Amino acid sequence: MIVVMKPGATKQQLDHIVERIEQLGLRSQVIVGTDRTVVAALGEKRDGAKQALETGDGVEKVVPILAPYKMASTEVKPEPTCVEVRGLRVGAGRLGIIAGPCSVESREQILAIADIVKEAGAAGLRGGAFKPRTSPYSFQGLKEKGLELLALARERTGLAIVTEVMAPEHVPMVAKYADVLQVGARNMQNYPLLEAAGESGLAVLLKRGPSATMDEFLLAAEYILKTGNYRVMLCERGIRTFEDHTRFTLPLASVPYLHQTTHLPVVVDPSHGTGKASLVAPMAVAAIASGADGLIVEIHPDPEKALSDGFQALTPGAFRKMMSECKKVAAALGRY
Amino acid sequence: MIVVMKPGATKQQLDHIVERIEQLGLRSQVIVGTDRTVVAALGEKRDGAKQALETGDGVEKVVPILAPYKMASTEVKPEPTCVEVRGLRVGAGRLGIIAGPCSVESREQILAIADIVKEAGAAGLRGGAFKPRTSPYSFQGLKEKGLELLALARERTGLAIVTEVMAPEHVPMVAKYADVLQVGARNMQNYPLLEAAGESGLAVLLKRGPSATMDEFLLAAEYILKTGNYRVMLCERGIRTFEDHTRFTLPLASVPYLHQTTHLPVVVDPSHGTGKASLVAPMAVAAIASGADGLIVEIHPDPEKALSDGFQALTPGAFRKMMSECKKVAAALGRY
Amino acid sequence: MIVVMKPGATKQQLDHIVERIEQLGLRSQVIVGTDRTVVAALGEKRDGAKQALETGDGVEKVVPILAPYKMASTEVKPEPTCVEVRGLRVGAGRLGIIAGPCSVESREQILAIADIVKEAGAAGLRGGAFKPRTSPYSFQGLKEKGLELLALARERTGLAIVTEVMAPEHVPMVAKYADVLQVGARNMQNYPLLEAAGESGLAVLLKRGPSATMDEFLLAAEYILKTGNYRVMLCERGIRTFEDHTRFTLPLASVPYLHQTTHLPVVVDPSHGTGKASLVAPMAVAAIASGADGLIVEIHPDPEKALSDGFQALTPGAFRKMMSECKKVAAALGRY
Amino acid sequence: MIVVMKPGATKQQLDHIVERIEQLGLRSQVIVGTDRTVVAALGEKRDGAKQALETGDGVEKVVPILAPYKMASTEVKPEPTCVEVRGLRVGAGRLGIIAGPCSVESREQILAIADIVKEAGAAGLRGGAFKPRTSPYSFQGLKEKGLELLALARERTGLAIVTEVMAPEHVPMVAKYADVLQVGARNMQNYPLLEAAGESGLAVLLKRGPSATMDEFLLAAEYILKTGNYRVMLCERGIRTFEDHTRFTLPLASVPYLHQTTHLPVVVDPSHGTGKASLVAPMAVAAIASGADGLIVEIHPDPEKALSDGFQALTPGAFRKMMSECKKVAAALGRY
Repeated sequence: MIVVMKPGATKQQLDHIVERIEQLGLRSQVIVGTDRTVVAALGEKRDGAKQALETGDGVEKVVPILAPYKMASTEVKPEPTCVEVRGLRVGAGRLGIIAGPCSVESREQILAIADIVKEAGAAGLRGGAFKPRTSPYSFQGLKEKGLELLALARERTGLAIVTEVMAPEHVPMVAKYADVLQVGARNMQNYPLLEAAGESGLAVLLKRGPSATMDEFLLAAEYILKTGNYRVMLCERGIRTFEDHTRFTLPLASVPYLHQTTHLPVVVDPSHGTGKASLVAPMAVAAIASGADGLIVEIHPDPEKALSDGFQALTPGAFRKMMSECKKVAAALGRY
Repeated sequence: MIVVMKPGATKQQLDHIVERIEQLGLRSQVIVGTDRTVVAALGEKRDGAKQALETGDGVEKVVPILAPYKMASTEVKPEPTCVEVRGLRVGAGRLGIIAGPCSVESREQILAIADIVKEAGAAGLRGGAFKPRTSPYSFQGLKEKGLELLALARERTGLAIVTEVMAPEHVPMVAKYADVLQVGARNMQNYPLLEAAGESGLAVLLKRGPSATMDEFLLAAEYILKTGNYRVMLCERGIRTFEDHTRFTLPLASVPYLHQTTHLPVVVDPSHGTGKASLVAPMAVAAIASGADGLIVEIHPDPEKALSDGFQALTPGAFRKMMSECKKVAAALGRY
Repeated sequence: MIVVMKPGATKQQLDHIVERIEQLGLRSQVIVGTDRTVVAALGEKRDGAKQALETGDGVEKVVPILAPYKMASTEVKPEPTCVEVRGLRVGAGRLGIIAGPCSVESREQILAIADIVKEAGAAGLRGGAFKPRTSPYSFQGLKEKGLELLALARERTGLAIVTEVMAPEHVPMVAKYADVLQVGARNMQNYPLLEAAGESGLAVLLKRGPSATMDEFLLAAEYILKTGNYRVMLCERGIRTFEDHTRFTLPLASVPYLHQTTHLPVVVDPSHGTGKASLVAPMAVAAIASGADGLIVEIHPDPEKALSDGFQALTPGAFRKMMSECKKVAAALGRY
Repeated sequence: MIVVMKPGATKQQLDHIVERIEQLGLRSQVIVGTDRTVVAALGEKRDGAKQALETGDGVEKVVPILAPYKMASTEVKPEPTCVEVRGLRVGAGRLGIIAGPCSVESREQILAIADIVKEAGAAGLRGGAFKPRTSPYSFQGLKEKGLELLALARERTGLAIVTEVMAPEHVPMVAKYADVLQVGARNMQNYPLLEAAGESGLAVLLKRGPSATMDEFLLAAEYILKTGNYRVMLCERGIRTFEDHTRFTLPLASVPYLHQTTHLPVVVDPSHGTGKASLVAPMAVAAIASGADGLIVEIHPDPEKALSDGFQALTPGAFRKMMSECKKVAAALGRY
């Protein structure tokens, strides 16, 4: 941590900061520059210390040197993590595709889609039973009935079930049916939920919040990792920017950045990331090319009749085409 | 709702859309322009219909005409709402100030601050007992012990207690002690929490999520209003932008915009909105000038020793000065 | 254009709007909904009319239906445009790669780089002679001397020269040496420059401004097209967002979006788009996969000694590896 | 400048960085932490050095300590600057109001508005003669004819004339008529224009680009200051964010931030900053309350007939009301 003193900070203010650093159990080293004096605070502390120092008299700012997360970091675990659930393998060179409807709507719908997903070569089935909806007037999901239908689809196809959980008290019920708990973008910083999901022992797909920085995203993952559950997949699903031609902006550079920073696998969601069916396939292929370990994609046999998010769902035909292009690009890059 | 057809959309596609509109229980009116055909869908539906139409073949986009929220709207309730809890009155021309520490840290701390808040003329005491922290390694609050201390401070000063609740299952416990439940920015779209807070019957201070649009903010309020609880205060606390000289960007135009759009009172949080103690007072005064019905401000007797967010806390002296300027500006504008 | 009246707008206000629409030479059609009345204004006008109507009494907002640009649109010219300069072919299925240093620094530097670029199979050489720099204390380029060196490199390698022009009065001089005039991101809305570049008759590479919407980007292109010069390449180079782990956010969905909207070719700049050498190659490959018609990449034989932007320059070795991966992905997708 | 080495950086890499620092004419100081080694580079250089170091092998990042601008800084000139032109005084405690139409449209229009501006107590008249318009199909201004009309209005009222200049080659002509040259937001980083405006010797109103950071804004000012012209006013006019209920987001915290950072006066433009006439007055008052040294506001006698930006223009009545509220708030805060 580097404490930058204001121009004209007094000797007394400097001494006070040095003393505070030592009270915090850190070592200090003073560096007198031409225009400014800075003090390095050396040691292991990741939190609290910054805050305690930046309010000191005469302090202009405190610049942290270490990343604020630990267990997610490649410094702690350099080799990439592969999350494996049934046939779904994501990370460490394995590419796992998850597809399915935004919402589970009916037995017919989910079984038909599961067959399509399976045949196209994907290994995970997504489908919302508990739906967080921006408007209280929108369809909120079939709840436990939806979970039962997902389990039925798994029985028939062997696909791993990925479904969202919205509140800590729902975790036990969802965990009875799901293979992977999805924590949605709106809940990325819902800490009681992160802890409950972690404690379930199930694999967790953690979606990036639409205004989360990479540090915040990895700290959210850290809440799960701290429960001892290392089966965490990070999911880039787009950020909120000024762009208005897409629902969100899908910043694929987060894929290689995360690979340099964390051992956790990275999944991309081109459906929410663009919000337009016509842009999903090109961005799915681009995600693979950028190094993504997996994809999660919305499909629907009849998007016009979908109860939610039909505008961003691929038809079965478009999905098969996307899968074929993804496979070609993955093969070209020596991945599988 | 206006359905814009693609250039070159066929007669058949147009007929299909008209038929869909009628199936949805809406009336249709076709408008043939020079370059495009558009279809107006007339009726009361606020959701579902847009989605059902925008996936139709030959449809370019669907433009909603009505706001997606109802109960929050000035169209439904034109007269402004005043939320009143003990001496705290916010809205409909009444200006209510809430101040206190980021976290409740000890009996001494909270009682000392409560006295300062009371003497300076504020009517609400804020203080976190359950703290959502970006890092799992940060101080997480005193929990129920903190709530007890807040209740003690209320007993002594008569200030209304405003404190955050982070999970639906905590609502009953927090409601035992608090006068106003705060739903934090990270939880603005935590729908089970919004519903539980609404059902408590207590007044709710709802903070805007850092990437929430005004429609999303008002739809989150709508989740609370739908429970029958109309005692909702909206809190602008800054948005996430590219700016890096402040912690968040505080967009005060949301104050007059909300006053034109909703009857709910609007509170501004200049502490989180700037993240720098030196910017809090000017923005507090500016918030009043922009028409805010209230302020929520972080103060600490010794910011350097605060367990959280000390860098944005005002000292007691700075807080008194801020209060005095706010009163002058409010008086100049004929508000109180 | 759809004029949405306020709830409670009077008959008189409505009549006034209808009259205004007709004064503007447009036809009107009134649509009376359950909660709102809207008026469609039908005709060809793209500008002025919206503004004239949205200030009318009783008007809530005006929703445009047509895109504001014309000549750039696929509606006007559905077949994709290929810009061809020497061996560089960009668009309509042809993939053109442009590479080179941020700044031309010396004869040795530019000739050495030109050889590397040529050998790796790229067809364009970039290099800044006039450098717009954020700080007035930074290196500003070799100016005409730099242009001469670029011409020398072309003579030796046959590569097409792409270089930036910063002011209308420099256009004639730069045009003497360059094959493609680059209009930089800071100048995307420098209209006198766009017109001067267009009138030069040379091909123009127009970079997207870091906060430009797609409509603004295409309207900037329209300024060039209006001069009669159709040899315009659009360049996505990243946008300004809250993300702080990259210099800009590279939103690749703009590639397929632009292909659906305009006939102009789309080039991606992964160097500025990420600002980190280690992220350039994955994003270059992803750009190809998303459908980009070209790339423009910064390379330097010794990035540590570069006079500008060394942190985002690829070494020759890294560039060759990137080219090889791009070719594999392009081949896998049937492009060349 | 602090050079942060990667974890596991070698002794050789460290030695190389120390050597580079000394080659750059700076002193080095090595700080060995628990997890990382950092090297402080001490001296006066503001540019080039950062770049030269951050590409070094084994370097993770380089953190600058000093602000990149000099002449704009309060460190160089602590006392606030007042820019004075005719009766317009902006800065150092003086509050100057500039108002007028978006575009000069006719003799009648500009003289009528000038009278209104004068009577309401403002000291500057704005009006565009050269108009940068997003669309090439929009009204582009009356050019020199417009400048003549502005000069006529000045003759009649004594108001200082503020008008935009769009290209370096127009500076001499505009300078013949104007008192203050406005550099628009689109041109904030048009460096040849900044230099030409600076060299004119006239006062310059520099608008913040919609995605410019404070450092970039102050570096743009530095381009003008470097010409020896210190009569620079900074103008906050709103930034591009995800917000869609306003045209731009007006971040008033930049006002107190700039006052802490630079001696230059700060003017706020609530017209472009909101893009909605109904939000202009509250934000003008809030700007004064936040400490702004001036305002620049669009007014029009008949906004519905304005040739540009009528939707954000105040009527004369609304402008008088705004002026009255601004004066009350300024008086309450002891400013004039």
